[in-house]
Amino acid sequence: MTTTAATGATATAQPEATTREQRLEHGLDVLGRIDGDAGENVLAALSDVSPELAHQIAAWGFGEIYSRPGLAPRDRQLVTLGMLTALGGCEPQLRVHLGAALNVGLTPQEIVEALLHSAVYCGFPRALNATLTAKQVFAERGLLPVATA
Amino acid sequence: MTTTAATGATATAQPEATTREQRLEHGLDVLGRIDGDAGENVLAALSDVSPELAHQIAAWGFGEIYSRPGLAPRDRQLVTLGMLTALGGCEPQLRVHLGAALNVGLTPQEIVEALLHSAVYCGFPRALNATLTAKQVFAERGLLPVATA
Amino acid sequence: MTTTAATGATATAQPEATTREQRLEHGLDVLGRIDGDAGENVLAALSDVSPELAHQIAAWGFGEIYSRPGLAPRDRQLVTLGMLTALGGCEPQLRVHLGAALNVGLTPQEIVEALLHSAVYCGFPRALNATLTAKQVFAERGLLPVATA
Amino acid sequence: MTTTAATGATATAQPEATTREQRLEHGLDVLGRIDGDAGENVLAALSDVSPELAHQIAAWGFGEIYSRPGLAPRDRQLVTLGMLTALGGCEPQLRVHLGAALNVGLTPQEIVEALLHSAVYCGFPRALNATLTAKQVFAERGLLPVATA
Amino acid sequence: MTTTAATGATATAQPEATTREQRLEHGLDVLGRIDGDAGENVLAALSDVSPELAHQIAAWGFGEIYSRPGLAPRDRQLVTLGMLTALGGCEPQLRVHLGAALNVGLTPQEIVEALLHSAVYCGFPRALNATLTAKQVFAERGLLPVATA
Amino acid sequence: MTTTAATGATATAQPEATTREQRLEHGLDVLGRIDGDAGENVLAALSDVSPELAHQIAAWGFGEIYSRPGLAPRDRQLVTLGMLTALGGCEPQLRVHLGAALNVGLTPQEIVEALLHSAVYCGFPRALNATLTAKQVFAERGLLPVATA
Repeated sequence: MTTTAATGATATAQPEATTREQRLEHGLDVLGRIDGDAGENVLAALSDVSPELAHQIAAWGFGEIYSRPGLAPRDRQLVTLGMLTALGGCEPQLRVHLGAALNVGLTPQEIVEALLHSAVYCGFPRALNATLTAKQVFAERGLLPVATA
Repeated sequence: MTTTAATGATATAQPEATTREQRLEHGLDVLGRIDGDAGENVLAALSDVSPELAHQIAAWGFGEIYSRPGLAPRDRQLVTLGMLTALGGCEPQLRVHLGAALNVGLTPQEIVEALLHSAVYCGFPRALNATLTAKQVFAERGLLPVATA
Repeated sequence: MTTTAATGATATAQPEATTREQRLEHGLDVLGRIDGDAGENVLAALSDVSPELAHQIAAWGFGEIYSRPGLAPRDRQLVTLGMLTALGGCEPQLRVHLGAALNVGLTPQEIVEALLHSAVYCGFPRALNATLTAKQVFAERGLLPVATA
Repeated sequence: MTTTAATGATATAQPEATTREQRLEHGLDVLGRIDGDAGENVLAALSDVSPELAHQIAAWGFGEIYSRPGLAPRDRQLVTLGMLTALGGCEPQLRVHLGAALNVGLTPQEIVEALLHSAVYCGFPRALNATLTAKQVFAERGLLPVATA
Repeated sequence: MTTTAATGATATAQPEATTREQRLEHGLDVLGRIDGDAGENVLAALSDVSPELAHQIAAWGFGEIYSRPGLAPRDRQLVTLGMLTALGGCEPQLRVHLGAALNVGLTPQEIVEALLHSAVYCGFPRALNATLTAKQVFAERGLLPVATA
Repeated sequence: MTTTAATGATATAQPEATTREQRLEHGLDVLGRIDGDAGENVLAALSDVSPELAHQIAAWGFGEIYSRPGLAPRDRQLVTLGMLTALGGCEPQLRVHLGAALNVGLTPQEIVEALLHSAVYCGFPRALNATLTAKQVFAERGLLPVATA
């Protein structure tokens, strides 16, 4: 385990030399397991306008950050749902990550409860937009109606 | 279990009649267990300017929403950290909820990882502001340095 | 009049014990008078995904906050138009509240002037999005063209 | 009354030729009546870094927009309080406009109620930040405690 | 060159008296050269709802600010792309200004690179929304695929 | 030059295998040239709370994105100033990047003009906050008063 003087970070995660291509492969693998087809469709849509953005989403966002062991995939999606709800105007990304949230084990009831919780911090309009986006994702997966407690 | 025709919501949570005062007591109890003194200090600061806002934070935010069983307290804080980081300019509230996150069982490492994760969705400035706020909270509790994985 | 020690708020508004169902009925009544059908359509859309969010919008947002006497309905809509314009990405909610603004007595000219005013604080893009949303609402009610002063 | 072909706007407000200096004088006059010293202090702080920004705030923001007759000064401040609360991170401007709100006839109770109302649309953190900023302004003017209804 | 005592701004830009109509003509001229038809379509859409907003966008936004000599048109579009990407929910305005960016000499490669750069500060969702909006604009102008370096 | 099938991005930038440590070194080098001491101070402040965030800011933000050839450093700072102004609540980051903007050749006059321009898109409060932050940076470097055109 080596320590970088400048930042104090330890370099255990990727101690070996990797090529840009290898980092992408790793990222695409992580992305596929979390987002499934929805993530790959986003990358495909970028291929003729900004393949570099597609590369960085996969290689950095998923290969570097998502793949870190310090926070469970389910927990990462809870944080992500909170952020995308609060940011607003991110309905396409919210759709992908609502699917990802289901993929990593959050139940529709937990998701709906998290979005209700968001009203306390973001207000009703953001909570409403996110909940109606969730309704679309749930409908596509045959998960409506969401059973109430 | 009764169902409300207008919204379809079931009314199991608080089937009995309660007074405004009772709902406040319940909320203050939930708030105290999650936020501790930090939450009560916020309410006290409001007492001469907007006691009604203090009432609603406690009675509604905590008594009605936080107290619902559908999402674990730890999960609620993950969503909340994501929202407060994304909103920006909420450092005082972030401070309270970083404390709450520790109170309900999130470790400093998980919190730091969640805030690193936020860079993917909110960019580095928001992630930085939240992480440096966390540094203050951790320092007050003697939790620095945060051990790296 | 009783005073709550913890927050200093006086409990005149709802001194009597109420059930969750009664609070919802009260909120739906207030919501219906302000938002009309548009508000009810939002609640209906939530019924199979998050009836609890529908409940809270009605019972808390309208039953607890909107129904308070300290600010006239017309004034509440002015503040609300300012907030929804500034938040951005809330066009569906803006549509409901532009209708509400007309319902409680704001004229199309005043609304348009408030949205022009928003350019000073939010910039032209937010002012433009809100004004073009108003154009849709006015068109549906046969209020175009808006007479200039 | 002439009509501009390109925009359809009627040119009644300033039909005569004015110089840049005259438009500034007019704006400073409007600004002084609404914001008082607080507004002038902002302009003074800009004098060695961006006198043009100071000019435009006065000449355009106040001289062109605030001075329009279509919305009462009190109503403009309600919209402005809503926007500044929703935007977040605008506490210095909020301070100026809370003073302006008092100057044009809003009572502390109405202001506090408007900020409570903002919780419904922006969530508690934004409402809290704005309310605690109002507390500072009210304290400077000897208006604490705000009497509850 | 006269100096305004109150703001310190020098009044070289428009030393002579102008009418509201003349300032509009000047603004429309600047707007036409930068935004082309897209800008005029926005003004036309406002003509029956808020001709005054159309007037101010042209007369002030373009006639007063865009026409200032201190920053090149190409540089103004770079700043503007950054702002519209960061604000979020401004896709219609982004579309107009992506066209403007091409009109004033930015290449598709530079635009795509600026939007990739935005991921560092705003996160991937905002960068993605802006890049997919750019894809639409580029497609309409036959500029796809964007050549990679 | 190899092409990645999945994203279409070409891998010319870093064709060889690199270690995590090498990528950090490269990023720190780019960061030092752009941000100078200010950037390094931010990384140092993170060293006991989130050295991984420090690593990613340097290795990814600067080493991967800033170091790309497709957009001049001066242009990157213009976009960045636009984003940080629009986001709001990013004054510490704005301070670093105002310094960076001066380091890469933007003049105080151009910076002030860019921030005036931001008023059109973000409104006066965001433009004011950014301009008063610039005043602080200029004062530290002895660049006040900014000469007017």
